[in-house]
Amino acid sequence: MANSYIPDIVVRRLPSYLQVLLHLKKGGAATTSSQELGNILGISAAQIRKDFSHFGEFGKQGTGYSVTYLIDQFTSILNVDRVWDIALVGAGDLGHAIARYQGFTNRGFRIKLIFDNDPRKIGQKISEFTIMDIDSISIEIPRHKIKIAMLTVPAVTAQSVAEQLVKAGIQSILSYAPITLSLPEKICCVEYANPILQLQHMTYYLGE
Amino acid sequence: MANSYIPDIVVRRLPSYLQVLLHLKKGGAATTSSQELGNILGISAAQIRKDFSHFGEFGKQGTGYSVTYLIDQFTSILNVDRVWDIALVGAGDLGHAIARYQGFTNRGFRIKLIFDNDPRKIGQKISEFTIMDIDSISIEIPRHKIKIAMLTVPAVTAQSVAEQLVKAGIQSILSYAPITLSLPEKICCVEYANPILQLQHMTYYLGE
Repeated sequence: MANSYIPDIVVRRLPSYLQVLLHLKKGGAATTSSQELGNILGISAAQIRKDFSHFGEFGKQGTGYSVTYLIDQFTSILNVDRVWDIALVGAGDLGHAIARYQGFTNRGFRIKLIFDNDPRKIGQKISEFTIMDIDSISIEIPRHKIKIAMLTVPAVTAQSVAEQLVKAGIQSILSYAPITLSLPEKICCVEYANPILQLQHMTYYLGE
Repeated sequence: MANSYIPDIVVRRLPSYLQVLLHLKKGGAATTSSQELGNILGISAAQIRKDFSHFGEFGKQGTGYSVTYLIDQFTSILNVDRVWDIALVGAGDLGHAIARYQGFTNRGFRIKLIFDNDPRKIGQKISEFTIMDIDSISIEIPRHKIKIAMLTVPAVTAQSVAEQLVKAGIQSILSYAPITLSLPEKICCVEYANPILQLQHMTYYLGE
């Protein structure tokens, strides 16, 4: 596999490719084409071929791509050929929804620990998880060697909790709090799961 | 304001710019620079100036950008100088979290209607909303002239609900269901709020 620098804009499309491929496989497809993938994703076939070219030869001229082969390749490229444990911080409505979310299975992730700062919640259960005291982050996260956290705390506490997480060894944060976090360089990435950002992207096109 | 074609990749960054600007304003900042915005967002200052150039002159040489002026401009460009009503379909954990989410206020959106298909939920309240029967989508959405829907139903029903929504006049869907929707051309956009996609983008860089 070509191991050169891949532009982030291409990297960002890989999880969508993988998702569509899994969807096609579920529907029984053995092969697919850049045309078909492009139609499903609303991207040109040429763009898809260009994206794939970063990773070497994926298909044979005229016969299309093997769905299973592409799934294996993207699973490996995205490092989800293993299971990453996730620490979830914030056991409100959203934390509950994520803890119960069935979509993580077989996609490379599992919720491992859940934290909250509310004494009424600490010790209670969500599914099979017992909610832990947020003050034990510095012990539990290194103990379980967890690198990824999902942040579902209110905006007002998000920055300080994020700092606690980074100190405890977290390298990537997916934050649902509607504020921009300011974190040291050593953290790999912060992503924001913010419906406002996606909704505003849609209203640009809705116009009126 | 320049009204020419703006690449979607630029449009996708505008909501983040607006979010950071609102954050700076809250902190009392009157002006900002492409350097400062770049540092906060992890984008180069040159990229930010290039993005802004699509929209005409935003700043004066040497004095930086007026935060309030930029907020006004991006608010208008993104069409969130008005309030868009949203129909929320699916009153599970995630639907509850979204219905109670405080982040919509002053960002251009408000939840207006909530639907579910579970007879035990229909008629119950979440905050000030009464959960409506999913079968009334075809009546209620045109009645309230709603164009945007958020979909928080299970994967297995997402496609059929999305089709119902489009038939009722919905033009944009933000879907939380972990499947790719297949919808007619006339719909403006479908966005996926899928933690898996964002987590997989992070694990690409986490490697090991």
